[in-house]
Formats: sequence, structure tokens, C-alpha cells
Amino acid sequence: MTSAAKQPPFIPFESFEIGQIQNFGAYEVTKEEIIEFASKYDAQFFHLDEEAAKQSLFGGLCASGWHTCSMTMAMLVENMDKTGRGLGSPGLDELRWLKPVFPGDILSVQMEVMDLLPSKSRPTIGFVVNKVTVNNQKDEPVMSFVSKGIFPRSQS
Amino acid sequence: MTSAAKQPPFIPFESFEIGQIQNFGAYEVTKEEIIEFASKYDAQFFHLDEEAAKQSLFGGLCASGWHTCSMTMAMLVENMDKTGRGLGSPGLDELRWLKPVFPGDILSVQMEVMDLLPSKSRPTIGFVVNKVTVNNQKDEPVMSFVSKGIFPRSQS
Repeated sequence: MTSAAKQPPFIPFESFEIGQIQNFGAYEVTKEEIIEFASKYDAQFFHLDEEAAKQSLFGGLCASGWHTCSMTMAMLVENMDKTGRGLGSPGLDELRWLKPVFPGDILSVQMEVMDLLPSKSRPTIGFVVNKVTVNNQKDEPVMSFVSKGIFPRSQS
Repeated sequence: MTSAAKQPPFIPFESFEIGQIQNFGAYEVTKEEIIEFASKYDAQFFHLDEEAAKQSLFGGLCASGWHTCSMTMAMLVENMDKTGRGLGSPGLDELRWLKPVFPGDILSVQMEVMDLLPSKSRPTIGFVVNKVTVNNQKDEPVMSFVSKGIFPRSQS
């Protein structure tokens, strides 16, 4: 079990800068994982059945959009294990599934700091607004969203 | 395997009305599933370790926000199996994780049609804009978002 003590340290809110960009991740998408995820959470034929999926808008078996979100989160957490962690997230905006994610695709993340918002009601925290773009191995964006992360403010 | 032919029929775009509300679902959240999902996709201590999670912002072990999205999608698909299906979704807006989702919670969905947007470039489809609210067994909203679904237009 992971304990709180064994987690990487928090990143202080003050360490972020607008315009800062990080690139990370190399998540290989498999047919087996697409079908396993969809069987549990998104049992639509274009996520389950290779033959039938050819008749869909997507042209072939592709990952559930929520699966792409989840694979992206796995890359975000792997990055946090290296750079430091946040306190959580209240949500996100402008989530767009731009292209289908197919078996064999290798996904990576580009994250750019768009805004820094100290909390008005809670002086101990601040919100970091990031544009998150997920690309496939051809550098085509397959998904993007604008996320908010909560980070602790340095006590001065 | 599910085939396209065995899927429920499509719902035509014209059958939706602004203000239409549907309530459905009863997804029981288990500790085992929270930990299983988080182990794969969101390995932060507040989704993995009951004891350590007590020290987090959430006050206890709780589901990954992406897991809550995925459980919600399972309820949406179950409802589509009864009422009819769409062609997919280009994305969503204003996703908010409003309250932690704990083991033992029973989630349900309320979906309200907010807007109907015939596609300007593709006369065969239209977009249905829904406000999706996920409640727990105490009728507290735990998550909400505004989704866009793609539906076929009746050919006239």
C-alpha cells in the first residue's frame, strides 16, 4: 500500500509560472485494454467489436473517451511521482475528444500553465490552470482539456 | 461480442426536447473497485490507502474523479440500451467534482436537455446538449458536466 508519507512532496503553488510547458508519457494503447475498459464502463460496439466498429463514425475499434482520460491521468500521476504532487482537482473545462484512439497508438502529454489563481477564500491554497493536450505517435492531438489543480501556498 | 446489428436503434435528433429530464441508474461504489481503478489509472494515496486518505482534503478513501466519470458512463450506456443510442460525443464542458465519492455510495444520474444544435456543416446529424448531474444516495450532487451527444437527423 502507498502511504501518504511515501508520496512525493507537494509542489508549492509559487513554483509554477504561466507559460511553463512539460512534455511526458508514452502510454501504449492495446486492443485488450480498450475492450476490458469498455466492457466495464462504456459497452458501445465501437469500443468492443473490431468488425462492427468499421461501420461506426470512428472507422474502427477505438478507446472509450473516458479510457483516454484515464490513461492520461496515469501519465499525469507518473509525472507527479517525479516532480511532486497536488492536493486534488475541482474539475476541468473544454474536454475535447479530437480524434479516435486506436490499438497500437502511443499517447503522450503536453501540459502548459495557462493561469495561476490564488484562492480568495482559503489563503493556504492556489489553483493552477493547465491546458492538457494528449498526442498520438504521429503528433496528432487526440484529446485536450483545461484542468484546474489545487496546490499548497508557501506560508510567508 | 456485441455487434452493431444487436445494438439498440439510434434515437433521432428530432425526438429530443429542451427541458426533457431523465433519471436513471443505481451504481454501488465498492472499496475494491475504487482501489482497482486507482491502481491502474490514478495511483494517488487518497484513492488507494484507507488510513492515509484520512489525512487528505477528502477525509477518507474516495474514488478517482475519472472513475466517477467512468461509472457514470456505465449508467449512461445502460440507459441507452433501453432508450436508444447516439453516434458518439465530441466532448464536454464544465466538469465539476463536487463532493468525494466514498465506498458504499450509490450513484444515480439526472440528465436534462439544455440545447439542440443541428450541425451546420453536416445536415445528417445534430448535437444534443445535456446537463448531467450525478447524485449519491443522500441526493447530494457529487459530479456534474455539460455533455454534447451526436444524433442522426431524420431524413425529410
